[in-house]
Amino acid sequence: MGNSLGKLLTVTSFGESHGRGVGVVLDGCPAGLPVTVTEIEREASRRWPGQAGATARAEPDKVEILSGVFQGRTTGAPICLLTWNRDVDSGAYRELVTMPRPGHADYTARVRYGGFNDFRGGGRFSGRITAPLVMAGAIARKLLGLKGMEIMAHVTEIGGIKARPADIAAIREQAGQDPLRCADLEAAARMLELISRTGQAADSLGGVIEGVALNLPAGLGEPVFDNLDGELAKALFAIPAVKGVEFGAGFAAAGMKGSENNDPYAISGGKVVTLTNNAGGVLGGISSGMPLVVRVAVKPTPSIGREQPTVDLEKRENTVITVRGRHDTCIVPRAVAVVEAMMALTISDFALRAGIIPRVLT
Amino acid sequence: MGNSLGKLLTVTSFGESHGRGVGVVLDGCPAGLPVTVTEIEREASRRWPGQAGATARAEPDKVEILSGVFQGRTTGAPICLLTWNRDVDSGAYRELVTMPRPGHADYTARVRYGGFNDFRGGGRFSGRITAPLVMAGAIARKLLGLKGMEIMAHVTEIGGIKARPADIAAIREQAGQDPLRCADLEAAARMLELISRTGQAADSLGGVIEGVALNLPAGLGEPVFDNLDGELAKALFAIPAVKGVEFGAGFAAAGMKGSENNDPYAISGGKVVTLTNNAGGVLGGISSGMPLVVRVAVKPTPSIGREQPTVDLEKRENTVITVRGRHDTCIVPRAVAVVEAMMALTISDFALRAGIIPRVLT
Amino acid sequence: MGNSLGKLLTVTSFGESHGRGVGVVLDGCPAGLPVTVTEIEREASRRWPGQAGATARAEPDKVEILSGVFQGRTTGAPICLLTWNRDVDSGAYRELVTMPRPGHADYTARVRYGGFNDFRGGGRFSGRITAPLVMAGAIARKLLGLKGMEIMAHVTEIGGIKARPADIAAIREQAGQDPLRCADLEAAARMLELISRTGQAADSLGGVIEGVALNLPAGLGEPVFDNLDGELAKALFAIPAVKGVEFGAGFAAAGMKGSENNDPYAISGGKVVTLTNNAGGVLGGISSGMPLVVRVAVKPTPSIGREQPTVDLEKRENTVITVRGRHDTCIVPRAVAVVEAMMALTISDFALRAGIIPRVLT
Amino acid sequence: MGNSLGKLLTVTSFGESHGRGVGVVLDGCPAGLPVTVTEIEREASRRWPGQAGATARAEPDKVEILSGVFQGRTTGAPICLLTWNRDVDSGAYRELVTMPRPGHADYTARVRYGGFNDFRGGGRFSGRITAPLVMAGAIARKLLGLKGMEIMAHVTEIGGIKARPADIAAIREQAGQDPLRCADLEAAARMLELISRTGQAADSLGGVIEGVALNLPAGLGEPVFDNLDGELAKALFAIPAVKGVEFGAGFAAAGMKGSENNDPYAISGGKVVTLTNNAGGVLGGISSGMPLVVRVAVKPTPSIGREQPTVDLEKRENTVITVRGRHDTCIVPRAVAVVEAMMALTISDFALRAGIIPRVLT
Repeated sequence: MGNSLGKLLTVTSFGESHGRGVGVVLDGCPAGLPVTVTEIEREASRRWPGQAGATARAEPDKVEILSGVFQGRTTGAPICLLTWNRDVDSGAYRELVTMPRPGHADYTARVRYGGFNDFRGGGRFSGRITAPLVMAGAIARKLLGLKGMEIMAHVTEIGGIKARPADIAAIREQAGQDPLRCADLEAAARMLELISRTGQAADSLGGVIEGVALNLPAGLGEPVFDNLDGELAKALFAIPAVKGVEFGAGFAAAGMKGSENNDPYAISGGKVVTLTNNAGGVLGGISSGMPLVVRVAVKPTPSIGREQPTVDLEKRENTVITVRGRHDTCIVPRAVAVVEAMMALTISDFALRAGIIPRVLT
Repeated sequence: MGNSLGKLLTVTSFGESHGRGVGVVLDGCPAGLPVTVTEIEREASRRWPGQAGATARAEPDKVEILSGVFQGRTTGAPICLLTWNRDVDSGAYRELVTMPRPGHADYTARVRYGGFNDFRGGGRFSGRITAPLVMAGAIARKLLGLKGMEIMAHVTEIGGIKARPADIAAIREQAGQDPLRCADLEAAARMLELISRTGQAADSLGGVIEGVALNLPAGLGEPVFDNLDGELAKALFAIPAVKGVEFGAGFAAAGMKGSENNDPYAISGGKVVTLTNNAGGVLGGISSGMPLVVRVAVKPTPSIGREQPTVDLEKRENTVITVRGRHDTCIVPRAVAVVEAMMALTISDFALRAGIIPRVLT
Repeated sequence: MGNSLGKLLTVTSFGESHGRGVGVVLDGCPAGLPVTVTEIEREASRRWPGQAGATARAEPDKVEILSGVFQGRTTGAPICLLTWNRDVDSGAYRELVTMPRPGHADYTARVRYGGFNDFRGGGRFSGRITAPLVMAGAIARKLLGLKGMEIMAHVTEIGGIKARPADIAAIREQAGQDPLRCADLEAAARMLELISRTGQAADSLGGVIEGVALNLPAGLGEPVFDNLDGELAKALFAIPAVKGVEFGAGFAAAGMKGSENNDPYAISGGKVVTLTNNAGGVLGGISSGMPLVVRVAVKPTPSIGREQPTVDLEKRENTVITVRGRHDTCIVPRAVAVVEAMMALTISDFALRAGIIPRVLT
Repeated sequence: MGNSLGKLLTVTSFGESHGRGVGVVLDGCPAGLPVTVTEIEREASRRWPGQAGATARAEPDKVEILSGVFQGRTTGAPICLLTWNRDVDSGAYRELVTMPRPGHADYTARVRYGGFNDFRGGGRFSGRITAPLVMAGAIARKLLGLKGMEIMAHVTEIGGIKARPADIAAIREQAGQDPLRCADLEAAARMLELISRTGQAADSLGGVIEGVALNLPAGLGEPVFDNLDGELAKALFAIPAVKGVEFGAGFAAAGMKGSENNDPYAISGGKVVTLTNNAGGVLGGISSGMPLVVRVAVKPTPSIGREQPTVDLEKRENTVITVRGRHDTCIVPRAVAVVEAMMALTISDFALRAGIIPRVLT
C-alpha cells in the first residue's frame, strides 16, 4: 500500500531501479486530452537538464503508453505509462545487502520489508522511480494548461550559494535553459564551479528548489485536512531527498511580525490581489489567486565516493563502506522537473475537485 | 470532503468556532484502551499553557464522549468527542463578511464556499477546531504509550529569538512546565518580554515548534507516497498558521555536504544507531529507530489591533480594517499541544498499519 | 475504521443503540443548500411508518444539527447530525454477553472486538444506527431534487407474499401512505394479517424492498471498481439484515436468454431509451438514463420470543436462550426509508463526481 | 478514478480489450511470498475451463511480472502484472461507435466518456480486463493459503438448469475438472446440451456462480460500511455481467421465518459453530467462522448473432444491429475463476487489516 496519490486524479507508482522497468498508472484523467509519446518523452527529458554533476547513465527514458489513450486522445480510462530499464549494472550493490549506505534508505527498507526488498540500485528508493512521475506530470500540465495554469520550478540554492530573487519571466526563460535550472546565471556559474570542485573531492551537494504555480483560481483546497498546502507537501515529500517544504515566507515568517507578514488586500484591474505574497498563494489551505510559491529543501546526494562508517548488519559490528558506482554530485537540478510534476499532479486533482477541469473535454 | 485524516486510525473533524460546538470522530481505535473524560480534558488543557499572549476567552474545553467508550474502555467503534462552544461574542465579526482580514482565510473561504461559510470567529478556520484534535490526540498518545512511544514538542523560536538546543530531559520537563513551552528558560524570559512589548504595539509574533517522537521502531512508513514524513507533513499543515515543515537538518541540509549530512551507522548496545541524526529519524520515508524530529514554522497571528489595508468585496474598492475582538499576540505556545496531537495521531496510524499496535488490546 | 462511506460526499457514522446517542458527520455537502431541523425530522419519522409489527419504543428521533449549517443553509463544512438516545432499558441484554442470540451479531462482534464492544441493545449493530443515516439521506435527497432526481422505495414482498408489480405513481403515492410501504394494497392487507399471526406465534418475517431512482442522467458511475451498482450494493449491505442485492432482472436474468434479457434501444421523444429495463438502469457500471431499479433481500428479524439453541461462550457448552425485550415482528417496512437514504447518499456522491451537482449552489 | 479496489491490499486495473495489453498493479502484498510466472499463468488459464460455448480467441494469457518480485519472492513493493494483447480483430467494432449493442456498455460508456472511450472489443468493459484480476487473485490465494484459507467457486445454474447442492469435496474436485465448472455432472451434461442448442439458435445463456471461502477465522470485517459482505459485493459487481449478489440463504431468506432462518449455535469439537448456515458465514458484516457462501447472478452474454433493435446515435433514429465477431454462448464457466479472484483479493485485504496475515512473511 501507499503507492497511490490523489483523490480524483490518482497516480499509482510501480517499478524498481534495476528491475524490468518503472511506470505509473494515472487514473481519473479527463477524456479527450490530446497526448503523444513525443511530448511525454520531451517532458521526461527535462529530468536530464545537462551534464553538470549528473551520472553518465545513458537513459533516454522512452515511454510506452500501455492504455488509456486511443486515437491520440485520453479515453478517461487509466493511463499506464511504462519506461523499460536498460544499461543496469547491479554488481556494485551486492555488499549493500548487509552494509547500509549512510544517508540512503538501505537500512530502513531492509527493516520495513524484512530484507526481501530489491536492493539493486536502491530499488524502489531510487530517483529512477521519479521518471514516470514526470511523465504523468506531463499529462497533468497539459490539463492545467487548458485553463491557463502554469507550473514552473527553479533552483534557488546549491551548496549554500543562493540565487538572487528572480521574476517570473526569468524563471520561465532563463531557468528553463540553464543546465542547473537556475534563473540567476551569475550564481549558476558559481554553483557549477562548486559542484565541479565538490565532485573532485568525492563529496556531494544539496540545495533548494522553488516551485511556482501561476493563474490558479482562488478557491482550490479542501480544508481542514485535504488542504492545498498539506496535499502539496505530502506529494513533494515523496521525492527522494526532500527534507523540508515551505510556502511563501515559510520559515522566515516565524521571525516576522504580523504587521510585516500579513499580505494587504487591494483591488487591481478589477481583481482582488494582495500587495505582498508572504502567504505563498495559500490561506487557510485554500488558494488565494496569487502565485502559489513553495520551496523544498533537497539534501546532498548520500552517495559519495568516500569511506564512511557503517555497520555490518549480519555480523552486528561496526565497519566502513565506500560507495561505488555512478552517482550525481548534485541531484538538485534534476529534481526540478519532479517538483513541477508533483505540483502539476496535485493541483490538477484540486482543479478536478473544484469542477474547473471537467471530466470530459470537448 | 477533506475533513478526515488517516487510514486505519481516522479522525474526522467537525464544528465551527462560534457554532454549537466542535468535535471529532476517531475511527479505528483499537478496542480495550482505558479512556476517561478526565485525562482527555487534562490533555486538552495543554492548549492553554499560560497567560502569556493568550486571549482571555474562558474556555474550559469540557469533553463529552458521545460514543465508542463503554465501561471505561474503547469498544473499537467510532469515538465521537464533542466540546460545546460557550462565551461567544460574534458581534465583532459582522463586517468581515465583506472585508477580509489580511492573513486570515476570510477571503479564500468566501470564494471557496460561495459566501455560505460561517464567518463568525473564523468559523471552520479558527484555532478552536484544534481543541478536539488535541482530545483525539490524547487517545492516540495512550496507544503509543502502550508500546513505549512518546511524543513531545517544544517552542524553539519566537519572534526571532532562538532557544538553545535542548536535550530530551529538558524538553520533557522544562518545556512542559514553561508557559511558553520553551526548554531554554533564559530564552523564554526574553521571548516573554518580546511578546509583552509586541502586544502593546498591537502587533503579533510567530515562531517555530519542534516535535520529537521517541522509541519509534525502525520500519514505520509506506513509501513512496504514504511515507512517514509526507503523512506527518500533511497532518501538520492542517494546523492553522503552519507555513513550513522540515525533518532533521531540514532546510539546513540544503547547505551541507554529503559527508556532513550523512548519518554514520554504528552498533550501540547491540542496536543499530546513527551517530548523528540529520535525517531526523526518517530515511526513504521510513522510520530509522532514531528520534523522529520535525519542526514547523508558525506564522505570526494575523489578528493585530492595527489598521490594515483591505478591500470591500461588494463595493470592489480599497479600504482599511481594524480587527477587533480578542486575539493572542503569539499563538505558538498554544500550538505545541496541537503539534503533539497531530504527530500522535499520524504515528499511531502507522503503528497500526505495521501491526505493532494490535486492533484489540488484551 | 470502516465507518465512513463515499468519496466526495462522505458520511461517517457513530453511536450505539443504548449509548449517549447516534449520529453522523456528512462531509462534502455543497454549500448553500437550505436545510431545516423540521425537514430532517420529517424524513427521520419515515423510519416509523406505522404500528404494524413495530416495537413500542417511543423514539421521536429529534435531530440536533451540531455544525455545517449557518443561517439556514449548508456552509460546505462537515454537517454533524446527532440524535440523543432515550427510553433505554439495557437490563434485558446482560446475559447476551456470554450467550449470543442466533441470527444477531453478538458472537461475531464479540470476537471482532475482543468482548469490549457495547452489547447493550445490539450496540453498534442495532437498527438504531440507521436513524442518522436517514437524516443524512434527507439532505442528499434535497441535493438530488435540485436536479430533478427522485428516490423512492417500497416493499415488494413480506413473508413470501409478493406484491403485484406497481407503476411509479402507485409507488410514489400508495406505498408512501401504506403502513407497510407496499403499493399493492391488497397484498399489504394479507401481509399485515401474516405479520399479526406470526407475531402471535413469537416468530418473525423478512421481505424484499425495491428502490427506484428516477431521472438520473446517463453517465453516472466510475468503472471498473467504483461503479454505480457496486457502490450502491456496498451501501445497501450496510443496512442490518440485508442478505442480497440485485439490479433490474437480477437473479432472474440468470435464467433468461440474451434475446430476452437485452434491452433494445429506441429513440423516444428525442431521447435514447430502452424498451425494457432488465438492466435496472445500469450497464457496465454506468447509469443508462432509465430508472435505476435495485432490490434488497431483508432477512427475518433475528429477535424472536422463542427458546433457541445457543452456546455459553464462557462455559463452552450448549444451552438455550429466549430473547426478551421489545422487537419488531417484521422490520421490512421500517427499512424502506433506510434503503432510500443509502441510495440518495450514494447517487449524490456520483452526481458530485460527475459535476452535475456543483459544490456551491447559487 | 475508480479503478482501484482494496484498502491495505489494493489492486489497480488498467488496459483495454484491443489495446496494447491489460494489467494490474497489486499494492500492499506482504514481502516474502514466493511467486512464479508459471503459477500465475496456471491460475489465469482457469479462465479457460473448456471449449463449451467459449470463443475461439487464442489467448494464452502469458504474464509479465514488471515489478515487485525479486529473486522469486514478493518484495513488498507494488507488483505490476501485464499481459499483452494479441490476435485482435477490431474491424467488427467500427459500427458500434454510433450503434450501441443492446445489453452492452457501448451507450453508457459513450455518454460517460464523451465518445473518447476505446470502443474496440468493448474496450475497458470487455471480460478481457478480468484476466489480470485473476492473475492478481493467484497471489491473493497464495496469501490466504498460508493461513489455511481456501477459496472455491462453482456453477450452480445455467439457463434455468439448476445443479443439485454439492458438498465441499465435490466442489473442490468435480467442479474444478468439469468444463462447465459444475459439481453436479448430470446437470452439467444437460447444461452443455442447452448451451449447444442455444448457440445454434444464435442466442446466449446466463447463470449463477456460488463462491465458498473456507477456514476464515471469525472476526473479519469492519462494520458498519467496510463490512465483509458489502466489500465482497462491491468487488463482485466489478465483474462484467453480474446483476445480483446474495449471501447464504440470500433472497430466499426474505421468505423464511426467523425461527427457520436463525442459525443456532453449538459447540462442536471445542469450537463455536452454527448448525445451519443461512447467514452464509457473515453476521453483522463480520465473518462467523462458518464457510462464507456467496452467489452471483450472471446475465446472459449480450452479444448474440441475431438482429436486434437499436438506435443510430448520430442520426437519432431507430435501426437494427447484428453483432458480428466471436462471442461466447455462455460466459458463466469462465467467470468462475474471476469470482474466486475477487473473493481472494477482498478476503486477503481483511486478513491484512486483522493482522492475521503479517506484512512481512518469514
